[in-house]
Parts: sequence; structure tokens; C-alpha cells
Amino acid sequence: MYQTILLAVDFSKAAASVAQRAVRLADAGGAKLTLLHVVEYLPVLDFSGDPMAMTPMVIDEKLLLESARKSLQSFVDKHLGDVEVEQQVCIGTPKLDILRVVGEQKIDLLVIGSHGRHGFARLLGSTAAAVLNDCPCDVLAVRVKD
Amino acid sequence: MYQTILLAVDFSKAAASVAQRAVRLADAGGAKLTLLHVVEYLPVLDFSGDPMAMTPMVIDEKLLLESARKSLQSFVDKHLGDVEVEQQVCIGTPKLDILRVVGEQKIDLLVIGSHGRHGFARLLGSTAAAVLNDCPCDVLAVRVKD
Repeated sequence: MYQTILLAVDFSKAAASVAQRAVRLADAGGAKLTLLHVVEYLPVLDFSGDPMAMTPMVIDEKLLLESARKSLQSFVDKHLGDVEVEQQVCIGTPKLDILRVVGEQKIDLLVIGSHGRHGFARLLGSTAAAVLNDCPCDVLAVRVKD
Repeated sequence: MYQTILLAVDFSKAAASVAQRAVRLADAGGAKLTLLHVVEYLPVLDFSGDPMAMTPMVIDEKLLLESARKSLQSFVDKHLGDVEVEQQVCIGTPKLDILRVVGEQKIDLLVIGSHGRHGFARLLGSTAAAVLNDCPCDVLAVRVKD
């Protein structure tokens, strides 16, 4: 069974049921479980298309990270109880940061919610599908109802 | 854990390691395991772009199915030993037939090899990625080296 499992947490309504799957698989193999939440970074552009002055963004990033850390901690407290997990939070692009952590931590299974394709996602593709093709390890896409 | 697992078998070099994953997960949850091999149907077109006369194809289909059934049986004998599995073979489009069987058999986990995207697959997309967005159940994409 898998030894190092990464769970990508997006705080959607279904995130808890995705997390339960990861926990059950981690239990079955005695795996180390890491939770990752990526705060999507969408730089604010001015009218010329350049990013706005950076100073306010730097402050915002600190606040965003702090807030995301708190949200992840309460998610763990509420849904995972006393399961031992490592928590990571970063600001970036979900696909790229998930793949970075998979590489850094030698993950052998990525667990991620798969929301199907509706509305915008139908055009952009889901993070699960985007990750799938470039992920060096196995991917468990847990189907969630939107 | 999962109760009904479908393994999509493609007879690639890595199919055995993908199958091992499916067997281990089936064991962990006492799941029923079904193996499906889809023979891709590529109709022969004449110069006008119409499919060629059908009679030879009907014979070919019977031979193709018979040959695929034998291949699947020897795959099971060689790599799964005494594991109890159901075997299915059909001619069609991998994505559509996998989704059909998932629905018919109320599958709750689809296990499929994920070959990444190289060459043609980079343009066409892999079956794993194609299935992911429309599959009503969880999908475990097992990464295989090409």
C-alpha cells in the first residue's frame, strides 16, 4: 500500500469526504499523510495589464497565508480529529504547487477532489485533470457532487 | 473502503503493476474486482471517407473479441493467479465503454494506468484524463513509466 499520501484540500463542501478517503487509505498502509492547501494567486492588474504596485500585495499575502493556516487547522480539528497529519499552506497555482510538493516530499499517492466540469471548469479543466497528466505518482480523484 | 472495483486493462508493459494496485485495494476492502479490456474500434474507411463494406469487419470483430478474451485470460493467469475476478471484453471506444461498465455495474472505484502525455497522447489526451471528468465514481490513476 501507499506510504506517503498528499491530500489537496480546497475547503469545498465535499472536502471532508475527500479527506475521509485519504485517511482510510493512510490507515490501511500506515502511511504518512500531508495536507496541502494552495491559495490561488491572482495578481491585480492595472489598466495596462501590468501587476499593480507590490507593497499592498505583500501585506495581503501574509494575511492570506495566516488565514489559510487557520482554516486548515479548523478543517483538521473538525474532520480529522486525532489523525496525525502534516499541514502545508502556500500561495500559488494549485497544479504547480501540488506537483512541487509531490516531488519534494516523495509522495506516492495524491488524493484530490474531482468536481467534474461545469461552467467555467468545463473551459478551464479541473485541477484534478490538470495534475493527472504531469503527476509523477498515482492520483486518486475522489468524485464529489457539486 | 471500496466495494466494487473496475480495472481497465490495456495489455501495456505496465498493466501488471496497475493490476497489483487494484488487487491490493480490493483485498483491503473485500471488494468485487472486474477486469475490462476494450478493443479499440477503428473502422476502415474507403477513399470517400465512408466505412468499407461491413461483411469482413463482422468476421474480424468475432476474431478480435475471441483473441482479446484469450489475452485477458492469460493476463489473469500470469499476473493475478488465484485472485477471483470477473472478466469483460468489448470492442469500442475505451472512454465510453469504461464509463458504460462503471454505470452498469455500479462501480465505486475505477483503476486505470496513466501513461502521461508523450507523442500522440500529448495531442489526444490519455484515456485516464478523458475518463476522469465524466466518471461518476472515484478514479485511481496509476502512474506507469512509458
